[in-house]
Amino acid sequence: MNDRLTPIAAPDAACAERVGRYLDCLTKPPGSLGRLEALAVTLAAITGEDFPRVTPPGVVVFAADHGVAEEGVSAFPQSVTAQMVANFVAGGAAINVFSRRLDARLEVVDVGVAGELPASGIVHDKVRPGTANLARHDAMSREEAGSAIEVGRRAAERAAVAGCRCLIVGEMGIANTTASSAMLAALTGAPVAELVGPGTGVAGDALAHKRAVIEAALVARAPDPADPLDVLARLGGLEIAAMVGAYLGAASKRLPILVDGFIATVAALTACRFDPALRPYLIFGHRSDEPGHGRALAALDAEPLLAMALRLGEGSGAALAFPLLEAATAMLAEMATFAGAGVDDRQAR
Amino acid sequence: MNDRLTPIAAPDAACAERVGRYLDCLTKPPGSLGRLEALAVTLAAITGEDFPRVTPPGVVVFAADHGVAEEGVSAFPQSVTAQMVANFVAGGAAINVFSRRLDARLEVVDVGVAGELPASGIVHDKVRPGTANLARHDAMSREEAGSAIEVGRRAAERAAVAGCRCLIVGEMGIANTTASSAMLAALTGAPVAELVGPGTGVAGDALAHKRAVIEAALVARAPDPADPLDVLARLGGLEIAAMVGAYLGAASKRLPILVDGFIATVAALTACRFDPALRPYLIFGHRSDEPGHGRALAALDAEPLLAMALRLGEGSGAALAFPLLEAATAMLAEMATFAGAGVDDRQAR
Repeated sequence: MNDRLTPIAAPDAACAERVGRYLDCLTKPPGSLGRLEALAVTLAAITGEDFPRVTPPGVVVFAADHGVAEEGVSAFPQSVTAQMVANFVAGGAAINVFSRRLDARLEVVDVGVAGELPASGIVHDKVRPGTANLARHDAMSREEAGSAIEVGRRAAERAAVAGCRCLIVGEMGIANTTASSAMLAALTGAPVAELVGPGTGVAGDALAHKRAVIEAALVARAPDPADPLDVLARLGGLEIAAMVGAYLGAASKRLPILVDGFIATVAALTACRFDPALRPYLIFGHRSDEPGHGRALAALDAEPLLAMALRLGEGSGAALAFPLLEAATAMLAEMATFAGAGVDDRQAR
Repeated sequence: MNDRLTPIAAPDAACAERVGRYLDCLTKPPGSLGRLEALAVTLAAITGEDFPRVTPPGVVVFAADHGVAEEGVSAFPQSVTAQMVANFVAGGAAINVFSRRLDARLEVVDVGVAGELPASGIVHDKVRPGTANLARHDAMSREEAGSAIEVGRRAAERAAVAGCRCLIVGEMGIANTTASSAMLAALTGAPVAELVGPGTGVAGDALAHKRAVIEAALVARAPDPADPLDVLARLGGLEIAAMVGAYLGAASKRLPILVDGFIATVAALTACRFDPALRPYLIFGHRSDEPGHGRALAALDAEPLLAMALRLGEGSGAALAFPLLEAATAMLAEMATFAGAGVDDRQAR
């Protein structure tokens, strides 16, 4: 996917090492700020800066519909995708509230909503009006999946040009936990029963039905697990493909990426199959309540920052974690050193 | 302790219930913001407000020395307490950096530092210049412990008068993990070997020595576990007693309290032994790396917001968790309702 584009650079190991040493000069016992110190080192490695900055962050929410919604796999009807996009435009959704708290640049991108949308306040970059029902057909063609990836790359490019120093990628798409669960099963070989959960609210018989739909689709679509574009096209979603592109685009700009929940993590796993050089650019915001999320995180050897039992999407969990990145950079930039503050750092005995 | 003061009110269950119902009208699947929703309900119960506010927060750091430092239980010499207070005044410590990020009112209170301190920039409310060495004597008298509790109450009162809507209580005191571990063993009966950890950096033989000092002190001091003032006086610290008073004072003002790490949690457990009505006012910021912290949290049936492997103190972990409280209140105040946004909330089938 990546050949005609800027390749993703390796993280800056020398910078990371300098920052790690500098952290031990700050007025705190070495290592006592735990994962915040590790975050500072990670951000230095990603950006190549001894005093990395992550503000302002960019939040991009990709919206698209899923043909599989007609199988009754979601607690909400498909029309809610377009209604929620209108809510994003009006500023009333969770991601609006959290983005405002961060002074983030928030962009909503229509990459494939089936319903009618507001004319302004969103980026219109629709590849097609929703995927086909993956229970009966491939969700989309390889060309369409590739086009949706390019939609995501363009969004990352806009965020970088606008001066964003960190990218949060969210999604909205009724039935997209079904597509993501199917992709995750295809990519990892994990049993569907271990991956598939309530999404935003199905339980009981409806949950068993959701599992059965996915299991049947895996057999009928038979994607090649070694070909991430094939997995995306047969089982994926337009917004999931766009997330893949946004991650790859952001990493090629050396932007730290704060990954949201289950769907965002499946997109991240897919993107790493396109280019493993992406992985060091990914910081994981939270561990969600969706059962497949743990499996997706394990496949990426990822340990998220928060565990707040969230299951909303939109980028909301990543946005909630962002202040920890800000705090890590502020710790580096603003804390006094032992020498500068006249604090004794020798061992007592 | 509480009889001549405003008693701590029961949380407002009716307000909590109203807020819980209102959360299900917001444009998200019910419960999908997980622990953030629970936080909003908790803040409503504490404040009695349907749209609680937590800003600006107040951060109070109590500093004091510990006679037991002469037993070699800390990786740092006692002089570092006063040096770090000077660092707080100069604005270079971690808690300064994190407090600035929150636009918090930061107050540093000397309740018992042995060394020389800056004349200005701190509240001078010293009860005595450090405790006695608890390995050989009671750390302080009951009267002194009571006076230190009053120091904390006054600090909470100042924060409330200044308009703070949430209180974070931190500490600085070389060797105070030793005092806290001893108190925790006395209050819970838990074996010292399970509680005592590296503090800010002891390991190996030094750690075994720290454990032995605490075990001997428990035998020699023989505090009455049913009398929290006795435990504080025989094994505690002046800053720990002040934290107890600050919690009790803040709760009597209906201020939410965001509890920091190990020492702060031992102080919270002690304060709840003085008045169990305090417990609903406590929100726990983080789970630290100190082994006794898990035991102290379990004794309070507490599940902290973050787990970042911190072991610094100063209130730093609570300050890092504070943006989650802000986000919870913003979610309540700013998110659109299904009806208001024209989003369909019926089940699909």
